[in-house]
Amino acid sequence: MYNIQHYQQGFLEYLKQYTIDREPKNLYEPANYILNLGGKRLRPVLALMACDCFGANYKKALDVALAIEVFHNFTLVHDDIMDAAPLRRGKTTVHKKWDENTGILSGDAMLIMAYQCLESYEPTIFSALTRLFSKTALEVCEGQQYDIDFETRQDVSIIEYLKMIEYKTAVLVGATMQMGALVAGASNDSQKAIYDFGRFLGIAFQLQDDYLDTFGNPETFGKQVGGDIIENKKTYLYLIAQQNLSATDADRLNVLFKTQPEDPSQKIELVKALFENSGAKSEILKAVENYTKQAFEVLKRLNISEENKAVLKRFGQELMGRSV
Amino acid sequence: MYNIQHYQQGFLEYLKQYTIDREPKNLYEPANYILNLGGKRLRPVLALMACDCFGANYKKALDVALAIEVFHNFTLVHDDIMDAAPLRRGKTTVHKKWDENTGILSGDAMLIMAYQCLESYEPTIFSALTRLFSKTALEVCEGQQYDIDFETRQDVSIIEYLKMIEYKTAVLVGATMQMGALVAGASNDSQKAIYDFGRFLGIAFQLQDDYLDTFGNPETFGKQVGGDIIENKKTYLYLIAQQNLSATDADRLNVLFKTQPEDPSQKIELVKALFENSGAKSEILKAVENYTKQAFEVLKRLNISEENKAVLKRFGQELMGRSV
Repeated sequence: MYNIQHYQQGFLEYLKQYTIDREPKNLYEPANYILNLGGKRLRPVLALMACDCFGANYKKALDVALAIEVFHNFTLVHDDIMDAAPLRRGKTTVHKKWDENTGILSGDAMLIMAYQCLESYEPTIFSALTRLFSKTALEVCEGQQYDIDFETRQDVSIIEYLKMIEYKTAVLVGATMQMGALVAGASNDSQKAIYDFGRFLGIAFQLQDDYLDTFGNPETFGKQVGGDIIENKKTYLYLIAQQNLSATDADRLNVLFKTQPEDPSQKIELVKALFENSGAKSEILKAVENYTKQAFEVLKRLNISEENKAVLKRFGQELMGRSV
Repeated sequence: MYNIQHYQQGFLEYLKQYTIDREPKNLYEPANYILNLGGKRLRPVLALMACDCFGANYKKALDVALAIEVFHNFTLVHDDIMDAAPLRRGKTTVHKKWDENTGILSGDAMLIMAYQCLESYEPTIFSALTRLFSKTALEVCEGQQYDIDFETRQDVSIIEYLKMIEYKTAVLVGATMQMGALVAGASNDSQKAIYDFGRFLGIAFQLQDDYLDTFGNPETFGKQVGGDIIENKKTYLYLIAQQNLSATDADRLNVLFKTQPEDPSQKIELVKALFENSGAKSEILKAVENYTKQAFEVLKRLNISEENKAVLKRFGQELMGRSV
């Protein structure tokens, strides 16, 4: 087993060969632009690591890693159009640097290119990978649709919210790891287990993101702390608080979530207090811990060496050990 | 061999089962809406007919027909956003009936669903179908990009224009027929031949569309006659005229193609005269005939009965026999 930097390095070299100039320029340049914006390359690393864990050379999963990364970046391009976001990883978004039509069409091309990345595998493997990939990709679209729907709904339940983040974020992490295991020749049971490991970790990660968005350290958290509150996003914290608060306090929270003050600092402090007093803050931390534990529990079902299980667990711990 | 109405009927019944209610509604309703807007179902018919021609039950190709139709409708949804088109087949476009974000996301889901339609085939066939499908889908995106690029370019060559319509329209017709033949078990040579048949017919069809847009009968041509001239579209007619006209007349055409008069009737008449005097009108008719002939020429290479060749030829003749 290699370390994370080794996988990152291996992936970045492979990506470099992939993002070459192609015609028509206006179709492929935006794709190369977003693919080279950086990021932690978490999904590719997970694909390579999963493959390695099951005893195959990690390079066997490079095309899986590429497919997932190209797909993930396609979702970023289209999501940024839908959110009218000007920035992505501190750089201009595709639809701002070019235009919306370019963003739509380049994104479409990237989705197709993601499928093509899997063509290097022989038919049986290709078929299994592609089916899992399509199923997951469609779930990601469904998750995005639920997220949009929730913006205008007042009756979103905790269960619905959890399903939304599972679809929008976690299933892709699960599928990434399963696809890495699949090309390594892992059994169906092990594939299912590593999928669940990734999926639970993905849910934990997204809930932690909700937590950090409100209670994170502004110096280490990548995004603006308080951003979800400013945008009146109905996150896990909000839904738990709504459920736990007295009618009066729930009303206060509701009223605050209808405002968009120019200086949001007072609003942020008031909402944070409600999140703390309602127990939402401690409940989300418990949920993060719970999903992480479930992920680690799954590792026991895996038919791999204890050493490799330890590597996966350590990776999970490091991922969840962000400045909480 | 059945007749076209039989294939259409078989496909429409299959489509009905496919376009059922699914959650989230805002993702799947737009897909069902556009899929049920009607149209001639030309591509599905071609898939079923190709399968039938090679001696298999046409029903074997129903999932190919569905994949192609879902893909084609995905391109309509996204193209209509890019063109800001309010109407499609006389009905409100998806992004107007819902909104642009819904159009983007539902379109994305449809592209994935198109891939999923192929999952009923066994791995080797699935793999071959999916590769051809991805290659073709990416070419369609490239064709769309070239079309967009040409709007702002003054130096588009005839060869570039032909490549654009080949990619944007014709390769999908070719691939549709090849995929129908593939599931019927046709040889690689026959697959290649039926692909070329569809591709040549597709180019002929698109050039005929250019012709009819300007010289068609307003009573039988589905769209507004003169539409391309009103929008200053650099079609085959325009490019040939530019090439053949004297410097003075080419300049006149150029100037006309910079105007957008409220009442376009005079402009249309002037441009039509230039298209006729330059020989562009007769050249496009020659090109249509030439590509149609090439399509029929290819039929000789096919390892199918003369009777079935005659069916394909008759279909081509009927398709090209639109009120020219």
